[in-house]
Amino acid sequence: MLTIDGLQYSNWSRSIFEQMREGGLDCVHVTIAYHETCQETLRNIGQWNKLFEQHGDLICPVGSASELLKAKQEGKTGVVFGFQNCSPIEDDYSLVEIFHTLGVRFMQLSYNNQSLLATGCYEAKDPGITRFGKQVIREMNRVGMVIDMSHSAELSTLEAIELSERPIAITHANPVFFESALRNKSDTVIKALGESGGMLGFSLYPFHLKNGPDCTLAEFCQMVGDAAEMMGVDHIGIGSDLCQDQANSVVEWMRNGRWSKTTDFGEGSSSNAGWPRQPDWFSNSTHYGNIAKGLTDHGFSDDDVEKVMGKNWLRFFESSFSAS
Amino acid sequence: MLTIDGLQYSNWSRSIFEQMREGGLDCVHVTIAYHETCQETLRNIGQWNKLFEQHGDLICPVGSASELLKAKQEGKTGVVFGFQNCSPIEDDYSLVEIFHTLGVRFMQLSYNNQSLLATGCYEAKDPGITRFGKQVIREMNRVGMVIDMSHSAELSTLEAIELSERPIAITHANPVFFESALRNKSDTVIKALGESGGMLGFSLYPFHLKNGPDCTLAEFCQMVGDAAEMMGVDHIGIGSDLCQDQANSVVEWMRNGRWSKTTDFGEGSSSNAGWPRQPDWFSNSTHYGNIAKGLTDHGFSDDDVEKVMGKNWLRFFESSFSAS
Repeated sequence: MLTIDGLQYSNWSRSIFEQMREGGLDCVHVTIAYHETCQETLRNIGQWNKLFEQHGDLICPVGSASELLKAKQEGKTGVVFGFQNCSPIEDDYSLVEIFHTLGVRFMQLSYNNQSLLATGCYEAKDPGITRFGKQVIREMNRVGMVIDMSHSAELSTLEAIELSERPIAITHANPVFFESALRNKSDTVIKALGESGGMLGFSLYPFHLKNGPDCTLAEFCQMVGDAAEMMGVDHIGIGSDLCQDQANSVVEWMRNGRWSKTTDFGEGSSSNAGWPRQPDWFSNSTHYGNIAKGLTDHGFSDDDVEKVMGKNWLRFFESSFSAS
Repeated sequence: MLTIDGLQYSNWSRSIFEQMREGGLDCVHVTIAYHETCQETLRNIGQWNKLFEQHGDLICPVGSASELLKAKQEGKTGVVFGFQNCSPIEDDYSLVEIFHTLGVRFMQLSYNNQSLLATGCYEAKDPGITRFGKQVIREMNRVGMVIDMSHSAELSTLEAIELSERPIAITHANPVFFESALRNKSDTVIKALGESGGMLGFSLYPFHLKNGPDCTLAEFCQMVGDAAEMMGVDHIGIGSDLCQDQANSVVEWMRNGRWSKTTDFGEGSSSNAGWPRQPDWFSNSTHYGNIAKGLTDHGFSDDDVEKVMGKNWLRFFESSFSAS
């Protein structure tokens, strides 16, 4: 079974990489920027280069589907870089190509707030893609960087699907019909994403789940089944949003960056400010087998389980990561 | 007569500073950033420090009304720093106070495009002030940095007036009733600005004038009279937007920054891409006397001419530039 996770952001360590190997994870899209500037992002890539050097027996950088398959053959987990915000390109469209050369394959056009490109899901109003945003979408299409709208607002997302000449992704979110979080996606978005050949990665982050950390595997797999009916079984995958071993200061950074003088609690609250507890059937990267089994138990065919667990992401990577 | 110009952006030189002295200009708000990052803006301040050192007999930095009056007494033109964009504070509200300490007294919340704070006047849609924008307005109010909406869109401007606890400015723009440019301001904005105690600086930039470079002094002064009736004679001043001796590459930078891969011509066009010609009655800083005379000829009283030429800006500076 090929297993690909459409998004993780963990406090990377040898023990986490060992869990990935134990869980049979062949490839993971990792976040390397939330609010970082260009230079700060280069430093984060530098940190990853050190990890590749130190743990080259377990992980390797991956920028194409063929590199991914080579990593699998060598028994390593391939790592794909992505941004959850457009902050690394600052005000400069030409940084899109530079970051692509450095291995970045996904960029969210916004992260919760209004960005220079698009609106985030926590803003009161959403005017859609900006003038700069239209330029950047064209450039991302040209070089082969995937537009990710996981944390973007509805109209911006629909416009990105429309404006982009290549299919886009929502790497880590769930349908609103499953849990009505601001971060989850409406039926309209899910249908438009599927019709345009895009990909939805299902999130295991408790704030995106029905009943939070108490969501059962069966409930999760029921949602996957319902979404497959809505958008097609070829357009869905896993995007766990697993944030393992992170300090609370990290979720504070993700939510507040440098923009908020008062504390913003994001999906949490003042009485529940830290990281939420993971469902016990998916608390680390050894647990991908639980999801595959859950999908089988729900009634998915072996072929479809393979699609959801990795083959759909592989096909999407094949057509998305190189120049148009 | 006290003479204050609410905005200039020239290719600063000794001959320009000498013209300012000859024209009796006591104080000028100068632009030190359009698209610059924090560090690039610090370099621009460094360049200004060199100018102050080299031409200290003609100019000096000014951060308060009392410093302005001292400069006048010493026969110098006081220079107030301002940004035409929020790019220098990047994503960090705490840079507002740092730049205030360095002498910055005005910041536009957006420049033509969507910013992290507000919408620019050339975007198709305007959702108003963003989440980050609300934080920054509070911080600007606290430290005494004036919110300038000269290049912002309508709803963003009205919301800034509403959200700001201190009066704001439109340092360089004209009423739409005079010339219907996207950069000019509607009756609604002008009335709200006046009622809130804000200031409008009238622009001499040809794209903001009726008949462009051929606008007559009498037509300009008629507009000043009409605006005075609409918003009160205490809330208007000059904000010439004079851009003297600048190369065409500079207006290209202002319009395109690093955001546009295709050429954006802003208020110009492909056949008229460079700097426009100034009206002959206001082509440099020796010409402030022409405006004062034109206002008198239009029928303004001596008191009101003094208000428009400088006293209104002085009163506004007195109440705006220090901590609340």
